[in-house]
Amino acid sequence: MDIHAITAPTFADVMTAAVRIAPHAQVTPVLRSRSLDALAGAQLHFKCEQLQRAGAFKFRGACNAVWALPETVAARGVVTHSSGNHGAALALAAGTRGIACHVVVPEGAVASKLAAIRAYGASLHSCAPTIAAREARCDALQRDTDATLVHPYRDPDVIAGQGTAALELINACEGRLDALVVPVGGGGLASGTALAAAALAPHCRLYVAEPAGAAETAASLAQGRRVTDFVPDTICDGLRGTLGQVNFDLLHAHDVQALVVDDADTVAAMRLLWSRMKQLVEPSSATVLAAILRYPQHFAGQRVGVLLSGGNVDLDALPTLFSAT
Amino acid sequence: MDIHAITAPTFADVMTAAVRIAPHAQVTPVLRSRSLDALAGAQLHFKCEQLQRAGAFKFRGACNAVWALPETVAARGVVTHSSGNHGAALALAAGTRGIACHVVVPEGAVASKLAAIRAYGASLHSCAPTIAAREARCDALQRDTDATLVHPYRDPDVIAGQGTAALELINACEGRLDALVVPVGGGGLASGTALAAAALAPHCRLYVAEPAGAAETAASLAQGRRVTDFVPDTICDGLRGTLGQVNFDLLHAHDVQALVVDDADTVAAMRLLWSRMKQLVEPSSATVLAAILRYPQHFAGQRVGVLLSGGNVDLDALPTLFSAT
Repeated sequence: MDIHAITAPTFADVMTAAVRIAPHAQVTPVLRSRSLDALAGAQLHFKCEQLQRAGAFKFRGACNAVWALPETVAARGVVTHSSGNHGAALALAAGTRGIACHVVVPEGAVASKLAAIRAYGASLHSCAPTIAAREARCDALQRDTDATLVHPYRDPDVIAGQGTAALELINACEGRLDALVVPVGGGGLASGTALAAAALAPHCRLYVAEPAGAAETAASLAQGRRVTDFVPDTICDGLRGTLGQVNFDLLHAHDVQALVVDDADTVAAMRLLWSRMKQLVEPSSATVLAAILRYPQHFAGQRVGVLLSGGNVDLDALPTLFSAT
Repeated sequence: MDIHAITAPTFADVMTAAVRIAPHAQVTPVLRSRSLDALAGAQLHFKCEQLQRAGAFKFRGACNAVWALPETVAARGVVTHSSGNHGAALALAAGTRGIACHVVVPEGAVASKLAAIRAYGASLHSCAPTIAAREARCDALQRDTDATLVHPYRDPDVIAGQGTAALELINACEGRLDALVVPVGGGGLASGTALAAAALAPHCRLYVAEPAGAAETAASLAQGRRVTDFVPDTICDGLRGTLGQVNFDLLHAHDVQALVVDDADTVAAMRLLWSRMKQLVEPSSATVLAAILRYPQHFAGQRVGVLLSGGNVDLDALPTLFSAT
């Protein structure tokens, strides 16, 4: 697959996605918290994608990609690789259309996420935990099954689908947001958000929150070209993907700024989201609040849209998670 | 205080409470979960009081009691005893009226709940962890300060205030509920719910979920008289209070049925609420789902209102909590 051949999606594609996924996806609520507003010195509007089907925003993109396929192509099924949330989302999305789904999962993935993928009816295929091994196994499966690859963040339909979360958030806030903060891993959510924000709230600044142990987006934006030679080391299991070229191009074109946070900041922010908002979000989601608290100068006194990306926490690993810092 | 002298509140008092607390309390959302519906074989409508101010339904009753006081009486402040949620709720409610609040707390109460009481500006007074010690300390404080006692569950204004949660839930479901399930400790929420349900959904059956280690409501309803000679032994720190006489009378009059659950069932249900709904509810809240799953014969195929009472979990005690069974 030549990633440079991918045509970048546009805001029209986000609008199409919103219509396409409406029968299947949740319009998730936007929650507020007096105590977190006080801590941040800003008005925070939390878009709750942990309440999305399959527990993360990923269902939006997967659902859009699955339902965008022509009937005869869809009938051959879909395939992907995923450390968790995208796999579960694609499995569930395939289920809504009654088609087969194959998911390549790296060894060491979160147990509860694998269980979810299985429960949604997908076939699991395990591989070594490297991007190269994941893509090779995926290629082989594509050849064997003739199923369509739905890449977790480079697929234009996935990017457009992820953009619908920001579309809903901006509309819920009647366009009056000074800033938006979303987490970044492979960049599917971030680039879809850039499309929605540019169209609906052009004066709204877009920030991506990124763990220090996987900060290639910050490096890429700083250098003006995609940096990919890194080995991720972060508790944010949803943010270990490599930024895609199409994703980088969209983030670069929209003048997105990266805010880097330590895992310790992320765990502290996660505890705040749990204890103050009673929302069980996963570490990847907490990076956004961590960034707002770490870099208050960007947000003081402003109306800020905050995208909580998912809530698929492995409860058996909680003691490890809280002692990670 | 002669508890037999308390005049039981009526549904009119619940309506008055709804108007009185409207400027201060949240109208909490009602959430659904496909996967929990499938597990329960019923349509579950979860009233999310973990999203109430101060993290529990208790703010409703406390707020109603504080704002029901005549100006000159209110000016002398309020006092109560509480293992946690009621204390925090009264502290916050007193704050909304700008009056003093004294809270007697038993030794061994959950640390995060004590911190919340303090953060809301109340004065803390510690005592031995028995009902007798709590009431004695409270009496002394009343004499010393001339503050008004707001009992956590026997106060008629507290009962009426707690009834507003069910009022909102029943209205959100347009009255079409076959059953309602709420947790029971001292009985403030349960008896307020009985008033609301009888008026708004007379054909709706009301169940109270109670931990086996503090099952005096089940014993009391079975014997037709209030049983009080028990020592609570349960992880549900919010449900260790002794059922009040006025509370018992209301539950008895409304033909409420008690469903007893083990702490192991409660922890399993709590894990489900965390992992499937992403809602960080405390053990007391999880008793209701535990009861629905333990006694499915009462709920099969029905529309069930489920009251999640609060979300004040001590995150530092999580490993203990999950290993409690």
